Amino acid sequence: MAISNGDLAKALGLPLQGDPGVVLDRVAPLDKAGPSALSFLVGKQYLPLLKATRAGLVILPEAHAGEAPGAVLVSPNPYLDYARAARLLFPVEAPEPGIHPGAVVAESAKISPTASIGPGAVIGERARIAEAVVVGAGAFIGDDVVIGEASRIDANAAIYRGVQIGKRCHIASCAVIGGDGFGYANDQGRWVGIPQVGSVRIGDDVDIGANTTIDRGAIEDTVIGDGVKLDNLIQIAHNVVIGEHTAIAGCTGIAGSATIGKYCTIGGAVNIVGHLRIADHTTITGQTFVANSIDEPGVYSSGVPMQANRQWRRNYARFKQLDELAKRIRQLEKQLEERTP
Amino acid sequence: MAISNGDLAKALGLPLQGDPGVVLDRVAPLDKAGPSALSFLVGKQYLPLLKATRAGLVILPEAHAGEAPGAVLVSPNPYLDYARAARLLFPVEAPEPGIHPGAVVAESAKISPTASIGPGAVIGERARIAEAVVVGAGAFIGDDVVIGEASRIDANAAIYRGVQIGKRCHIASCAVIGGDGFGYANDQGRWVGIPQVGSVRIGDDVDIGANTTIDRGAIEDTVIGDGVKLDNLIQIAHNVVIGEHTAIAGCTGIAGSATIGKYCTIGGAVNIVGHLRIADHTTITGQTFVANSIDEPGVYSSGVPMQANRQWRRNYARFKQLDELAKRIRQLEKQLEERTP
Amino acid sequence: MAISNGDLAKALGLPLQGDPGVVLDRVAPLDKAGPSALSFLVGKQYLPLLKATRAGLVILPEAHAGEAPGAVLVSPNPYLDYARAARLLFPVEAPEPGIHPGAVVAESAKISPTASIGPGAVIGERARIAEAVVVGAGAFIGDDVVIGEASRIDANAAIYRGVQIGKRCHIASCAVIGGDGFGYANDQGRWVGIPQVGSVRIGDDVDIGANTTIDRGAIEDTVIGDGVKLDNLIQIAHNVVIGEHTAIAGCTGIAGSATIGKYCTIGGAVNIVGHLRIADHTTITGQTFVANSIDEPGVYSSGVPMQANRQWRRNYARFKQLDELAKRIRQLEKQLEERTP
Repeated sequence: MAISNGDLAKALGLPLQGDPGVVLDRVAPLDKAGPSALSFLVGKQYLPLLKATRAGLVILPEAHAGEAPGAVLVSPNPYLDYARAARLLFPVEAPEPGIHPGAVVAESAKISPTASIGPGAVIGERARIAEAVVVGAGAFIGDDVVIGEASRIDANAAIYRGVQIGKRCHIASCAVIGGDGFGYANDQGRWVGIPQVGSVRIGDDVDIGANTTIDRGAIEDTVIGDGVKLDNLIQIAHNVVIGEHTAIAGCTGIAGSATIGKYCTIGGAVNIVGHLRIADHTTITGQTFVANSIDEPGVYSSGVPMQANRQWRRNYARFKQLDELAKRIRQLEKQLEERTP
Repeated sequence: MAISNGDLAKALGLPLQGDPGVVLDRVAPLDKAGPSALSFLVGKQYLPLLKATRAGLVILPEAHAGEAPGAVLVSPNPYLDYARAARLLFPVEAPEPGIHPGAVVAESAKISPTASIGPGAVIGERARIAEAVVVGAGAFIGDDVVIGEASRIDANAAIYRGVQIGKRCHIASCAVIGGDGFGYANDQGRWVGIPQVGSVRIGDDVDIGANTTIDRGAIEDTVIGDGVKLDNLIQIAHNVVIGEHTAIAGCTGIAGSATIGKYCTIGGAVNIVGHLRIADHTTITGQTFVANSIDEPGVYSSGVPMQANRQWRRNYARFKQLDELAKRIRQLEKQLEERTP
Repeated sequence: MAISNGDLAKALGLPLQGDPGVVLDRVAPLDKAGPSALSFLVGKQYLPLLKATRAGLVILPEAHAGEAPGAVLVSPNPYLDYARAARLLFPVEAPEPGIHPGAVVAESAKISPTASIGPGAVIGERARIAEAVVVGAGAFIGDDVVIGEASRIDANAAIYRGVQIGKRCHIASCAVIGGDGFGYANDQGRWVGIPQVGSVRIGDDVDIGANTTIDRGAIEDTVIGDGVKLDNLIQIAHNVVIGEHTAIAGCTGIAGSATIGKYCTIGGAVNIVGHLRIADHTTITGQTFVANSIDEPGVYSSGVPMQANRQWRRNYARFKQLDELAKRIRQLEKQLEERTP
């Protein structure tokens, strides 16, 4: 798509300073932008690049509006307005509606005529596929699955029977939704599977990354709230509940029946133990191991620093003595007290 | 399925207290169960819920048999008997036997007439698919793969050439079994792949979760013992051996040639270094880094506690001084000894 | 394949000691090798096995050439020469060229007549598939993807639109290349996706493991250099750059815009924070959390040791006091100084 500075300013409702007639057809970082590129300024470290940029338009905060050589769009939240502008330049591609002849659709499935079902996709019995849904090539949609308006399921994703997906969701390739939860009873050393008869309910505007897995509930459902964003390679175990508008970075694992609040930000490679509760508005930094519930919102972390291997090895060995060292400190303190005249 | 209390008691061989004529058709937690729901009591914290439950039947330990308002089934292992009862209510769905016209099956493959091969599934040369096996939509079964009786391979899983899978296994969607192990020789900085000519042998009653990967062996086979249960997003490297009836939670990684014992319980996000040996009956808690072999069964752990970020940062910084702090304690002790009259 | 000792020695350009007429048709470890098996010696711990081996040929360093009972091939790098020899015995299987009738190929795609496109594979508009490329069953190749000569894409992998893949690459099953990066702007608590308009560029001789994910760039491309080897279940976020000939073990995650040097070796389950730089020739051991850039090559680590759970719990609790303990040590030192006559 191509759009002029003037039209873009109008679409975003932002004040333009500079030539409204410049036509934009791409995005670029400040230092690589040419005259038809949209760019943005977020972070003072990029100010030197702003001063030298050749971008056709820069979205930036008011404080720096005077420092760009070319046209600017003044925004209270430049990154957000960049997101909107870039979406205008790069609309989500909508494939032709219709069912590809290489798809396999059960007779009892209800597919909107505006939906697009790709080659090799399989749609199960009684599945309901709403308007403008896109099911990619080779994606598997099980029996009784419901997919809301304008959601996209990418190639080779797998949605097990009965999963409910809201509107405007995006599920990336090889994500697996609704597989059996990991639940077993022990019979004298042998594991006997607990039938996982719950399902997965996914709200509206949820993004689920590539190869992320969300298990169906054991009895009740696993629930992903509206607006939740999940990165790649995340494991969500059975009966987890994730509150609305929480974002979780890649490689994080959440064990069974944990309840994550709304508006949380959870870093990558975090692991959350089962049955815990995480308060709304909590931030957890990357690779934190969460073994206790979090009742108060705030920023939480764990871990020890990376060091050169040789130095680390010494400290690593001492960790085993930590309790003993603490006792020796107490002992020293006592001895000194006793000797105090 | 629907089943009466009386029939369920008979099927499980357990003593029923209460109305044998109640008909069950669902499962539910104690506090949400209605008169046609089966429920169970595991854990004293749920006793208050038991007393108020409306469940048609509760499976519980003898000690609490008198505390339920309705019918109960007394069990020495209520969770196990719940698993069995729930399986009776929710039998594994068996699709129609036969090869879907949209599947692609090599002429030399041998498929039992009682097996079900889904649309888009691909079965390689000389593959052998036993009775009652279910191969899901889009699953890939390579040349010379052998799949034992009643095993299920879910949609979009990939089984590379020559992998052997036992009876009653369940392999979830997008699991990948038998990919090349990560083995390279170094040639002046460049990596040259070691042909991975071993395979993967999987015993009976093995469950493998969604997006879990099990690599084929370099020379000999990677081996997964009978009754092993693997959760989602687990990495099993080449030539790992996992003993019978070991259960491993999600996001765990096991490096090459590690040997895991029988009846182990390994938490989520554990990482086990290559070439180690883990004793039978070992328990490893979540996110533990296992850098040494474990010779004695027991419970093993590593890691540091999560804290509010501000507090954690202080302790985190001190970790780099741990060896120095220990030496200063020793120094203080010496000084005090020297001064002791 | 079968090959004689003499022919193998000639092919590798290495001096043979022993019978050139022995015919090899398999590989085996020293202790399990029979007379038609090739084996190798790497590591002195295997010397006792060497002395008793029945292998038809052993590749080994000169120092131990006299200690084998049978024929040997003397090599300055036995593991590397084993890799080459094993590849001669087990050449990569090349399926028949041609497009399977069950594949779906866009009319505008250009497919070399020597390429092989498997059943159920989908090739998008304007994709370019070079000579001797193998696209496995059910693999998805998006619009405008370019795949260089002799690269192999395994069953059920997904390559999003516009990704460029070099020559002789190998992408394992269910790997996902070019999914959207995890980029959002925040709008009063709600996340608004940043269009991810960059792509992924992959060099020559790159291996990508099963279920590994590599996201497309936000504005510019994510770049994987020549000769990079990625194991299974790795997450590479948007705009990461990985230098040539770096190898990364399974379950590692690299956050957005991190730049990894050339010739690095990164262990399993490592997590690297976004926007960092890692120097060329750096080694990072398993499960290290990399929260700072690494400017000097070397070996880097983090983490605390595994212990029996009971011991670990004590030290774990003390970690929360570490800063306080350090201050008490300082206090003791001061008190002792003050009392020094």
